[in-house]
Amino acid sequence: MRAMQVRDTSEFHLIEKLAGAIAEDNAACIARLDAKDFRLRLGIGDDAAAWDASAGVRVLTTDTMVEGVHFNLGQTSWRDLGWKALASNLSDVAAMGCTPLYSVITLGLRGDLPVDGLVDMYRGMVDVGRTCGAVIAGGDIVRSPVFFVTVALTGTATTPDGPLLTRAAAVPGDQVAVTGSLGCSAGGFRMLTENLEFDDQTSIHLSRAHNRPVPRIAEGLTLAANGVVAAIDISDGLVDDLGKLCKSSGLGAVIRTDKIPIDDQLKRAFPDEWQALALGGGEEYELLFTAPEEIMDRAIASLELPCTVIGEIVAGPERVKVVDQNGKEIPVDQSGWDHFQHTQPSS
Amino acid sequence: MRAMQVRDTSEFHLIEKLAGAIAEDNAACIARLDAKDFRLRLGIGDDAAAWDASAGVRVLTTDTMVEGVHFNLGQTSWRDLGWKALASNLSDVAAMGCTPLYSVITLGLRGDLPVDGLVDMYRGMVDVGRTCGAVIAGGDIVRSPVFFVTVALTGTATTPDGPLLTRAAAVPGDQVAVTGSLGCSAGGFRMLTENLEFDDQTSIHLSRAHNRPVPRIAEGLTLAANGVVAAIDISDGLVDDLGKLCKSSGLGAVIRTDKIPIDDQLKRAFPDEWQALALGGGEEYELLFTAPEEIMDRAIASLELPCTVIGEIVAGPERVKVVDQNGKEIPVDQSGWDHFQHTQPSS
Repeated sequence: MRAMQVRDTSEFHLIEKLAGAIAEDNAACIARLDAKDFRLRLGIGDDAAAWDASAGVRVLTTDTMVEGVHFNLGQTSWRDLGWKALASNLSDVAAMGCTPLYSVITLGLRGDLPVDGLVDMYRGMVDVGRTCGAVIAGGDIVRSPVFFVTVALTGTATTPDGPLLTRAAAVPGDQVAVTGSLGCSAGGFRMLTENLEFDDQTSIHLSRAHNRPVPRIAEGLTLAANGVVAAIDISDGLVDDLGKLCKSSGLGAVIRTDKIPIDDQLKRAFPDEWQALALGGGEEYELLFTAPEEIMDRAIASLELPCTVIGEIVAGPERVKVVDQNGKEIPVDQSGWDHFQHTQPSS
Repeated sequence: MRAMQVRDTSEFHLIEKLAGAIAEDNAACIARLDAKDFRLRLGIGDDAAAWDASAGVRVLTTDTMVEGVHFNLGQTSWRDLGWKALASNLSDVAAMGCTPLYSVITLGLRGDLPVDGLVDMYRGMVDVGRTCGAVIAGGDIVRSPVFFVTVALTGTATTPDGPLLTRAAAVPGDQVAVTGSLGCSAGGFRMLTENLEFDDQTSIHLSRAHNRPVPRIAEGLTLAANGVVAAIDISDGLVDDLGKLCKSSGLGAVIRTDKIPIDDQLKRAFPDEWQALALGGGEEYELLFTAPEEIMDRAIASLELPCTVIGEIVAGPERVKVVDQNGKEIPVDQSGWDHFQHTQPSS
């Protein structure tokens, strides 16, 4: 018997099925927000989601995944797809130094998509949502010849007047640092698309880095609480996203390749390419942030996750200079990933 | 010389161009929200939009238009497309009895789309946004083989504890009423797709109803202020949307065809079909609301826009019964418009 497809059901029943699949986890997250004075009044099913809000700073972000552009169903499991669709938005909220609140999900669906797959996708969304208390509060389902998932997510700063982490707040002399280690998501993508074989531990590590990247919500909050004001998440690659931060701040940056945190498993799996994967790989969802040395020391000491200073912000042209341990410049593509002119390296 | 296409530009420059096209109107709307204590802190260009928020009820809605499903570029102008993409979201906020605040726009773009067209589309968004003070505060641009536009919009109730208009709040004995007149958007769609010819005044009236539907923000606020608690906007058709309200409220409804407000121009243009257009036509963006007679009288008297009582809410099965002036039931398709199994009649 063929699995139930979207065209076999009605919008009403599909929404009911998706809402049912996440009801329990979502309820736990709703209770958490309730306790923080953001009480949900209307979830899935009305013209809009609605909640009581206390005063303070709010953020709103949106991010989309399109089949054939950002994912392929043959390579990504439905559950991982759900994780990534919400995680990319959570990562944007993390990069603001905020806590996620409510989200609405838009599904553009082909009629032949399996309903069970969509249910699994929703389960993947709450898998990552419950790690940081984000709630799915509604959405929209439309017919589309190409399958896509768009998430819009609200968040809030922890104190009424912020502070927020922004791309435009870097100043000359700031140190540049990153959370975690880089390149594993791109390495995982290479492994999965080119059917590369590594030992079990490396395979699990790389595929997890690519399919289940962890948004750095707690880290963003800690950075903001410790006086850091400039940050971006690494979604398009280290050089590309640092370039965006430089452009927004009207400054340049110099980073040293020997300082970039890269784990041994990636180095062993890609002995000739780990540096390129770390410089250019996207969908890392690590935070890239800048601060004067004193603030940086305090912030890094406050984080549980290892963080590494990899360079500094400089006056001058809005570009990222990449140098080796001897200070010799390494040529890298400054155009970064462009959504229209290139193929994304990591998805 | 061929007009500049999406693939000729970079994401950065496209965002700059789109933001520039709406800067002036958007600034005026930002100033209005600022005066209401919702000060924008970060607009287009960071990981998320951010604003200072006062306490109270917040709503979040999203709505999508997909090329070939909800619109065709040969039939809809870019500017009208922008109007409709934001208007459908504004209408959802109106149906909650709320005021719109900030929106983020997701564009899924084919490389061969003209940049000038997208700029015009953004102008169409601020055309409707400035009628009610909605601000475009950011978004996301992705490559997609099918062109789509998704808007996510936040809103707020005018007083800290609401009141909100919801689909689930109807009670037996409530009168059922609608704002404005019905069927003209569907009539305009028929005229435009079938190249029907009418006198100039009728043509303008019908195409305007279809291409520039006015979200009933002020009316939603007035209804909420006067004690109405149950409403939905007519986006999929009168019978279909009343059916959704009935389902959410666990009740039935009876409406009389001779009470439905239909303007003379529509009747003359479609002498045999105006009733079907009024019962089934979508994208009207009129409000459909219910209330006990006393509240209904007061609410309707408070509205500047003509409103009409067309039936009542009844206990019993969750279905909409349509009767003529003699009380004789008229068979109508109760399944309504389904996003997967039917073709939408009006778009």
